[in-house]
Amino acid sequence: MPTPEELLAARYGAPVSWTPPQWNHTLDIIHQHRSVRRWLDKPVADDTIRTIISAAQSGSTSSNKQVISVIVVKDPEARKALSEISQQMFPHLEQVPVVLIWLIDFSRIRYAATREQLPTGAHDYLDEAALGFLDAGVAAQNAAIAAESLGLGTLYLGSVRNDVEAVQKLLGIPPEIVPVLGLEIGHPDPTEPAGIKPRLPQEAIVHWDTYSTPDPTHIDAYDQALDTYFSRYGQHQLWSTQMAHRAASTSTTKTNRKFLRRVLERAGFGLK
Amino acid sequence: MPTPEELLAARYGAPVSWTPPQWNHTLDIIHQHRSVRRWLDKPVADDTIRTIISAAQSGSTSSNKQVISVIVVKDPEARKALSEISQQMFPHLEQVPVVLIWLIDFSRIRYAATREQLPTGAHDYLDEAALGFLDAGVAAQNAAIAAESLGLGTLYLGSVRNDVEAVQKLLGIPPEIVPVLGLEIGHPDPTEPAGIKPRLPQEAIVHWDTYSTPDPTHIDAYDQALDTYFSRYGQHQLWSTQMAHRAASTSTTKTNRKFLRRVLERAGFGLK
Repeated sequence: MPTPEELLAARYGAPVSWTPPQWNHTLDIIHQHRSVRRWLDKPVADDTIRTIISAAQSGSTSSNKQVISVIVVKDPEARKALSEISQQMFPHLEQVPVVLIWLIDFSRIRYAATREQLPTGAHDYLDEAALGFLDAGVAAQNAAIAAESLGLGTLYLGSVRNDVEAVQKLLGIPPEIVPVLGLEIGHPDPTEPAGIKPRLPQEAIVHWDTYSTPDPTHIDAYDQALDTYFSRYGQHQLWSTQMAHRAASTSTTKTNRKFLRRVLERAGFGLK
Repeated sequence: MPTPEELLAARYGAPVSWTPPQWNHTLDIIHQHRSVRRWLDKPVADDTIRTIISAAQSGSTSSNKQVISVIVVKDPEARKALSEISQQMFPHLEQVPVVLIWLIDFSRIRYAATREQLPTGAHDYLDEAALGFLDAGVAAQNAAIAAESLGLGTLYLGSVRNDVEAVQKLLGIPPEIVPVLGLEIGHPDPTEPAGIKPRLPQEAIVHWDTYSTPDPTHIDAYDQALDTYFSRYGQHQLWSTQMAHRAASTSTTKTNRKFLRRVLERAGFGLK
């Protein structure tokens, strides 16, 4: 087991200048996170999935609205179809035993409003959809940590947004309920060559009491740290170059991500 | 220490019909989560905050874009001002030693795009802002679990969105960077009367392989379970009634949450 100092040095691609005053097994789990893309052919028990979902539900939810639902996709045909919908080469989606599809689902609140004969004016505003995305992130991450604490691996699939309408059709999801994120869960293949990916140094992202524009040289340092990490695996494009090319369009406009607004409007969000 | 069965019974306000095949300390931490609103007058060390933030950064980020930044607010004047901006009575914001303010911050990617002389067409689409909200939820929840694993308590503050522009002004945040969520972190006052709040039963939110409309009687059962929980603390409005009234408007339109669209547009998101 690596020490906290070793874990942090791996996480930032360089030793850090501070020392954690306390450490524990949960911090080990969180800091050891990596995305898994090769899975063993080994199922995950339904009661383990229920435990992971009770963890997801145990996180905070905005005003206790509980607008997140989840579909447990185990069916191989459905996973194959999800891989096709993602419009990417995702062999891991065919290998993994379980994919959780996280849904923004205001149907329970709409049901309550109908019963109380009240309008749902809050849904006219963008904030209400934003709250759904935030809560989906919170719930999914609790699930991810729970799974990883049990020795399982995870992979987030933002690619379900590459064609939300196709995912709705595939899984029988009505238009008013919006799948926004997937989470693969399974037993990692230990032969996969992947480690702890370095992140931006805290100096680039943390501000104390007030915001102050970070020194851009932190980005150059990170470019180098990530390049060193990736050179082990034969990849060689600087982070900043890759991010600039992604922002220049492709991933959004090449896929049906460009229709997310239409999807949310069909779901009844006003987005004012 | 309660058993897993006791924790799950508390979390759902009723015993569950399944048994977790495995359990561990991290699952204890996650399932014991509660919102803390009374704090001891006791600081949190800066290196503990750095450890909590390294946990936040260790979570997955969409395409490794790392669009989340964070402001550590310790200054008492700033916390008092945040309480006033929230337009609610939040004495806990004045008591708590630390508030983390989570920011959607594409400035690093814009910097990289400018350097590469590339446009940022992806930012014209709503999906790019949605990705920011999802990633903020993931990062903040990793921070929350890390803090709770260290014996600290947390409270989410969606109320920073009650007036994003005022928060930007208060903390010196430029208009292109958007605070979307706060997280109070401190030492819980053990005399606070609050327990594990029940959530909707899994039958109401979990679907297996395909979506199927849940039986609405699950909502009635939950109304009763939550009512039983709240009756200990003297509160008495059914969940579904409360949610219907919230959806009928007030929290969004009474505050500047109604301006989130304008805030995001000023930040350079096209929201197409």
